[in-house]
Amino acid sequence: MANEALFRVEKDLMGEKEIPVSAYYGIQTVRAKENFPITGYPIHEELIRSLGYVKKAAAKANMEVGVLNKRIGEAIMKASDDVISGSLNEHFIVDSIQGGAGTSMNMNANEVIANRAIEYLGGKKGDYLKVSPNTHVNMAQSTNDALPTAIHLAGLFLSDGLIEELEMLIESLAKKEEEFDSVIKMGRTHLQDAVPIRLGQEFGSYRRLLNRDLKRIQRSVDQLYEVNMGATAVGTGLNAMPEYIEAVTKNLAEMSGMPIHGAENLVDATQNTDSYTQLSSAMKIMAINLSKMANDLRLMSSGPRTGFNEINLPPRQAGSSIMPGKVNPVMCEVVNQVSFQVIGNDQTISLASEAGQLELNVMGPVLVFNLLQSFTVLRNGIRVFREYAVDGIEANTERNREMVENSVGIITAINPHVGYETAARIAKEAIQSGRSVREICIERGILSEEELDRILDPVEMTNPGIAAKELIFGE
Amino acid sequence: MANEALFRVEKDLMGEKEIPVSAYYGIQTVRAKENFPITGYPIHEELIRSLGYVKKAAAKANMEVGVLNKRIGEAIMKASDDVISGSLNEHFIVDSIQGGAGTSMNMNANEVIANRAIEYLGGKKGDYLKVSPNTHVNMAQSTNDALPTAIHLAGLFLSDGLIEELEMLIESLAKKEEEFDSVIKMGRTHLQDAVPIRLGQEFGSYRRLLNRDLKRIQRSVDQLYEVNMGATAVGTGLNAMPEYIEAVTKNLAEMSGMPIHGAENLVDATQNTDSYTQLSSAMKIMAINLSKMANDLRLMSSGPRTGFNEINLPPRQAGSSIMPGKVNPVMCEVVNQVSFQVIGNDQTISLASEAGQLELNVMGPVLVFNLLQSFTVLRNGIRVFREYAVDGIEANTERNREMVENSVGIITAINPHVGYETAARIAKEAIQSGRSVREICIERGILSEEELDRILDPVEMTNPGIAAKELIFGE
Amino acid sequence: MANEALFRVEKDLMGEKEIPVSAYYGIQTVRAKENFPITGYPIHEELIRSLGYVKKAAAKANMEVGVLNKRIGEAIMKASDDVISGSLNEHFIVDSIQGGAGTSMNMNANEVIANRAIEYLGGKKGDYLKVSPNTHVNMAQSTNDALPTAIHLAGLFLSDGLIEELEMLIESLAKKEEEFDSVIKMGRTHLQDAVPIRLGQEFGSYRRLLNRDLKRIQRSVDQLYEVNMGATAVGTGLNAMPEYIEAVTKNLAEMSGMPIHGAENLVDATQNTDSYTQLSSAMKIMAINLSKMANDLRLMSSGPRTGFNEINLPPRQAGSSIMPGKVNPVMCEVVNQVSFQVIGNDQTISLASEAGQLELNVMGPVLVFNLLQSFTVLRNGIRVFREYAVDGIEANTERNREMVENSVGIITAINPHVGYETAARIAKEAIQSGRSVREICIERGILSEEELDRILDPVEMTNPGIAAKELIFGE
Amino acid sequence: MANEALFRVEKDLMGEKEIPVSAYYGIQTVRAKENFPITGYPIHEELIRSLGYVKKAAAKANMEVGVLNKRIGEAIMKASDDVISGSLNEHFIVDSIQGGAGTSMNMNANEVIANRAIEYLGGKKGDYLKVSPNTHVNMAQSTNDALPTAIHLAGLFLSDGLIEELEMLIESLAKKEEEFDSVIKMGRTHLQDAVPIRLGQEFGSYRRLLNRDLKRIQRSVDQLYEVNMGATAVGTGLNAMPEYIEAVTKNLAEMSGMPIHGAENLVDATQNTDSYTQLSSAMKIMAINLSKMANDLRLMSSGPRTGFNEINLPPRQAGSSIMPGKVNPVMCEVVNQVSFQVIGNDQTISLASEAGQLELNVMGPVLVFNLLQSFTVLRNGIRVFREYAVDGIEANTERNREMVENSVGIITAINPHVGYETAARIAKEAIQSGRSVREICIERGILSEEELDRILDPVEMTNPGIAAKELIFGE
Repeated sequence: MANEALFRVEKDLMGEKEIPVSAYYGIQTVRAKENFPITGYPIHEELIRSLGYVKKAAAKANMEVGVLNKRIGEAIMKASDDVISGSLNEHFIVDSIQGGAGTSMNMNANEVIANRAIEYLGGKKGDYLKVSPNTHVNMAQSTNDALPTAIHLAGLFLSDGLIEELEMLIESLAKKEEEFDSVIKMGRTHLQDAVPIRLGQEFGSYRRLLNRDLKRIQRSVDQLYEVNMGATAVGTGLNAMPEYIEAVTKNLAEMSGMPIHGAENLVDATQNTDSYTQLSSAMKIMAINLSKMANDLRLMSSGPRTGFNEINLPPRQAGSSIMPGKVNPVMCEVVNQVSFQVIGNDQTISLASEAGQLELNVMGPVLVFNLLQSFTVLRNGIRVFREYAVDGIEANTERNREMVENSVGIITAINPHVGYETAARIAKEAIQSGRSVREICIERGILSEEELDRILDPVEMTNPGIAAKELIFGE
Repeated sequence: MANEALFRVEKDLMGEKEIPVSAYYGIQTVRAKENFPITGYPIHEELIRSLGYVKKAAAKANMEVGVLNKRIGEAIMKASDDVISGSLNEHFIVDSIQGGAGTSMNMNANEVIANRAIEYLGGKKGDYLKVSPNTHVNMAQSTNDALPTAIHLAGLFLSDGLIEELEMLIESLAKKEEEFDSVIKMGRTHLQDAVPIRLGQEFGSYRRLLNRDLKRIQRSVDQLYEVNMGATAVGTGLNAMPEYIEAVTKNLAEMSGMPIHGAENLVDATQNTDSYTQLSSAMKIMAINLSKMANDLRLMSSGPRTGFNEINLPPRQAGSSIMPGKVNPVMCEVVNQVSFQVIGNDQTISLASEAGQLELNVMGPVLVFNLLQSFTVLRNGIRVFREYAVDGIEANTERNREMVENSVGIITAINPHVGYETAARIAKEAIQSGRSVREICIERGILSEEELDRILDPVEMTNPGIAAKELIFGE
Repeated sequence: MANEALFRVEKDLMGEKEIPVSAYYGIQTVRAKENFPITGYPIHEELIRSLGYVKKAAAKANMEVGVLNKRIGEAIMKASDDVISGSLNEHFIVDSIQGGAGTSMNMNANEVIANRAIEYLGGKKGDYLKVSPNTHVNMAQSTNDALPTAIHLAGLFLSDGLIEELEMLIESLAKKEEEFDSVIKMGRTHLQDAVPIRLGQEFGSYRRLLNRDLKRIQRSVDQLYEVNMGATAVGTGLNAMPEYIEAVTKNLAEMSGMPIHGAENLVDATQNTDSYTQLSSAMKIMAINLSKMANDLRLMSSGPRTGFNEINLPPRQAGSSIMPGKVNPVMCEVVNQVSFQVIGNDQTISLASEAGQLELNVMGPVLVFNLLQSFTVLRNGIRVFREYAVDGIEANTERNREMVENSVGIITAINPHVGYETAARIAKEAIQSGRSVREICIERGILSEEELDRILDPVEMTNPGIAAKELIFGE
Repeated sequence: MANEALFRVEKDLMGEKEIPVSAYYGIQTVRAKENFPITGYPIHEELIRSLGYVKKAAAKANMEVGVLNKRIGEAIMKASDDVISGSLNEHFIVDSIQGGAGTSMNMNANEVIANRAIEYLGGKKGDYLKVSPNTHVNMAQSTNDALPTAIHLAGLFLSDGLIEELEMLIESLAKKEEEFDSVIKMGRTHLQDAVPIRLGQEFGSYRRLLNRDLKRIQRSVDQLYEVNMGATAVGTGLNAMPEYIEAVTKNLAEMSGMPIHGAENLVDATQNTDSYTQLSSAMKIMAINLSKMANDLRLMSSGPRTGFNEINLPPRQAGSSIMPGKVNPVMCEVVNQVSFQVIGNDQTISLASEAGQLELNVMGPVLVFNLLQSFTVLRNGIRVFREYAVDGIEANTERNREMVENSVGIITAINPHVGYETAARIAKEAIQSGRSVREICIERGILSEEELDRILDPVEMTNPGIAAKELIFGE
């Protein structure tokens, strides 16, 4: 008796289940919850919201083509709005990783919307004769088109944030490029002293790199605008009328504000997941690049006394629980870790994509879990990296200049004037004796002070050109 | 004024922060929360619990060696017990992915315990003169030993569950091995008909494979028993007295019930992360094996009418939102996805491990996030796979027998009696004509009915041996 | 004495080495050979050829800007032509994997060209006063611009072949798409019977997928047109005059026939390797797709008697050394393996790319080894896959039709007419009883024969639409 | 006519092929050569040699159990000896990557041995009535047992070399550990100055790490001793008599000198490839560790003037074609690249292993290609790393000492004496003012000179302990 107050009973072909009376989900959701207690992570909020849009667009289209009763259709649309608003998120209880190609995510959405719609029609949850999760909410849809479409939409919502953050980081790097344009420092290859470079040139290099990443991301995101609504089970569009297919896509674009359009070929769009692998690859490439950049900043800021000490990163927190006063490059380190996470996610996505079979890739849930996580951690990571690290970087201009002046690497500029072999001998002597290249050149009468001033001008060395070309080699 | 009621103010060398009065964490935690809003996932509960044990063991050891005041030490121990119980979990607010080698996780634990201890001593949260997070709670510790030790402990706690589930799955497979011992079916190589095999032999093969995985996991878990408590900052044990090092490890073993012991060399144990990569590799190998097994089951259960249809998996939920009556191998599919997740996590772990530098690997947070997730999803995935799939598998014995009898692959048993070339010609004819191998052999007078009965006995064909060996080849 | 006839002695700052008199390489090459006996694989022929172009273009440019003596420069150009022709390949003896950012590859080229040029000037190999490998052949170059430029060129040469083969495969798939347009077969999701599809639709899906891969490859290859000649050591162009930079790129484009141009920013182009990771990612995505397609073909051709048996692949070789008459899908299997190789190569490339530091990525050799191998095995694999598998695929039309007619999955088409729940009950009964869906519908009076003819028309089921829509659901 | 002199014609069920008269391979090899022109790399020499042992052991066993004519069997054994000797290597022409689970490798061996045996019996190549590749050479074998067995054997041969080199590297590290035991240097965490450590401790850490790698490799290699000879097609042993199975394994152990034994369960051993994934994982873990170690050495040797400059690596070759006198850590860089290659190979191996289906994993060729390559490049890389880098490392003792003395990190040792907060303030002031910690402590009267001498003793700081413990914290 008490139980009746707390639970309603739902039935399907496999039997009965008790459902909490307050729950908008139904028996299929409960089965899925039981079957897949894997990660403990619910599905991404943007995916829930996107499912709301898909169901709303479908209901409207089904009414438009005259196969769905208006009263029911309108109730479904209102219920979908509740899903879109996020107010029913707690009723999406299925796990992020689940078998069945995401059928359970779709069923969860169908049931929540059906029960909410039933209430709008004055019924009680569970009274599926009023609104059926499958017959009405899922009308003319399959998980195999509704879910991929929602994934595309969620990707688009998230990519907006990522792209915005990336653009702001690029702008910050551009500012540093300008700010550090006249800071001469030692360039290094193989971590060995090479030839001078300007710190601004280094930041310019980061900026350009990330700008290409931005384009790769944008180009990959573009693929998401193409959705497979209307494909139904295997892409042939069985049970979906052509008029519906057109209408649902148009509705979805209008409702979501995203300029999506129907895929040219629905069989292709249903079974292939290359839009996910391309996106993930673009994020992976960016992760590789970000990690390299973070490593550079950690190298340049190493020290303060026993490292390179070329730049200072803004201190963000006490660096050690035991070493007082220690400040660590924590914002760079978190970028490294975000990068590793994204690269690992790409691995999972690659495996899942390769596992597609025939008309469908059933690994959708793990695909979307990793894809949306990559979007999220990259966006978040980039934001704090910019705000708490890049924007506050300072150059140790004086130390940088000293290191250039003391270096042996500047011998390279002398190379065209004396030939590789002679230059190599001078360099070797400088390294062994601890003396400067300039000193040895003068002592040996190899070049005059005046010549050396011209050849070893630090700024000149950071631009193309030979300080003088009086000799033609080989004569 | 109102604000004062809601917040207290804490200070460090970088400035001030407002802390909610109800919060047990302090300023370092708040800084970390601000710096690292990356995944939204809090640190794993087992890791929080393990940090509790570490802090408790250290407090006791510090009292034992006489450097920590008893009253304070005991308060720290009581506060640590609260952490162990899980009742303070909500005060562990730092993100799973964070820069700084996990300093923030350690600081979060130090602050929560300090504030709880302060309360036990009758003070108010924030009154760190009573109990200091760093000077007292973190006494003789560094993040670089406290956190890895806690990670080891968390790994041990989680591995217990994984190993238990794995053992139960192996037992289930053993039952199926026995149950299906007499089910003759067609063996396939290259997905092409090969020679007969017994279904029980296939399950025996899975059992043995997982048994090796079990051993790999166990052997890898064994490494976790070795902890680096006492290493402090870089493994040299600076600020940690030898007596303390001995005591803290002993205390930790007693308190946690895990037979941990101190690492032979603390420098090594502090900078190297091969215990994590080995564990992750063992889980990755198991994931590969589980995925292959799940694929096999999906192949064998393909159909029902247009596939192999050799076995039936227990139906667990409606398979499709559009195709009524469809039942999918969802429990196998979730195993595939768990496997892909674990393999992806191994990628992240590998990258993070390779990124260690000199005395420390600062990528600990992303390492432990992925490592503990692999433990968790594998354990959960294996459990439902066993319970909802393996235990309920049924064989379609009749159909399996028919397929063996109709196959051409049985020609292989005839091979030793007639030579490869003759056998190949018979096989080709059988395939092209649709007739049976037996029929052709008799018609051509190649072998008698009696000989064929002996040679083609289905059970015999699944064991070593040649049905008769009247001929020596080459004479 | 005898030794003198066989060897010449060369010297550098580290000491002396004996060089075979017949060898065009010199002391730096010998040092590298000794230092790096890693894979046993020499550098890729296309890379040697490309280095020839780079050295030739540089010599001409250096003459044009007046820093290189004409007689020497022309001898270098002639010697470079010999390298381009491939006739000196055996003198490129350094290993594919080597430390030093490929300095040894560049030095090997410099030495071979110098010694050949010396001969053209009437000298004897080793007489570097006549032509110096570093001062003359490497004039105004660094390994850090010469090698990446050569890698870009080699990539362009190889990509031509890959793209051509890919286009031919797409064409072959298009033919099969047309040929199989009317072959109705059972579509499968989750390896379970779903709804009918046309075999031509499946091949159309492969064609479209590969067409996107083609575009991804082309777009990635486009990045290779941008080269960093003139960057010299760190991208600042030290020792390279602006006029030279312009000239060398123009020369290289003319000589190689590839429309290459100078990078907009040489610092960026020298330290970043995202053009490689993007290319490798594009190939990885294609590999994933090819592997999925190969798996599909292996599934569809499984059998002949105990599998799907929907299509026949052309037999290419005896499939078994023990099972006579067995024919395996070997051409698909080799595509899977090529794919795995390419995906593994992408892993190496990703790691190597992330390992760049500051002004240079020193992991160039392992990057280019894997990148060029991916090009090669994909091109070769695609060619034989098309020629020996795809072009000869035949459909088992009759068997495909039978499977559709016997299937339960066609219940989906009935769904819109009776509702999901009723349809599910019919499906369940059909599966359990072994009877057909049509039979049960008629017996129960659910639909008339006439209605069923219309609804279950196999061709209609493979296109969008509902066979009839007399009902509005919900009324 | 002329053709007849150059070619013989062989036939199989698919048709005829011309074979060069000098070739020991036959028609199946030619078909495979045509089908798989993928990498251009022949199969590994150790694999050819191992196939020779397998065929020899099988021939002997078949004679012993009385199914193979002695004259033929002995000829096969002699021919197998030729294969073992390597003298027929050029007749193994099939590509490393091939479809068909390695059937072509096995067939290539069968044909070469058959034709050589025919010659020993006085016949002419191609006269397979004398000795048949399948009926006689392959008697009681399948590719599915002969090839995996040969792979195990090849792995064992190669692992000997790897283990030997690894042991020598460990020994070299032990010498450096001892040599540098008294070299005090700055320990770094997060690349930031931490607390002192001894250079010997760092090398000890590397030694211990590699020692664990050695054990992981050895334990993984142990699995190779278990072979599946006698499994034939699917592991059931069809066509292989139990006496034969025992004999062939015993023969193989004796002939190869490797203590191999038969697998406990042949079905398991035939379809599962976890011995490969475990080996590859062990090598991957070692690769990760080697790469970290190589990175450390590159960091420590960075400079000479603008880097850490703590150690010197032996110069091995001119480091730059443009920067005279530059010497790069090329031996470390090659270790990084070898590591990336091995990690990439592990990726391929993982994918190939996961792709096993039912009774067989047909991806054997790409598995073994990558596995044996990993063995090879690791062995070679480790050898030159030891010989040309580790053995010659020198410490810049003086510079190391200076850096310790100037560092702020030593404040950590003061921490237990003054508390974390006070120590943090001193550290901050030291960093900002450029003054020494000692100086500030004295000036402020925080500690006496005497106390500081004791607390800041550099050697003491590298061992566990607190210099004094007069205070109990919290009183």
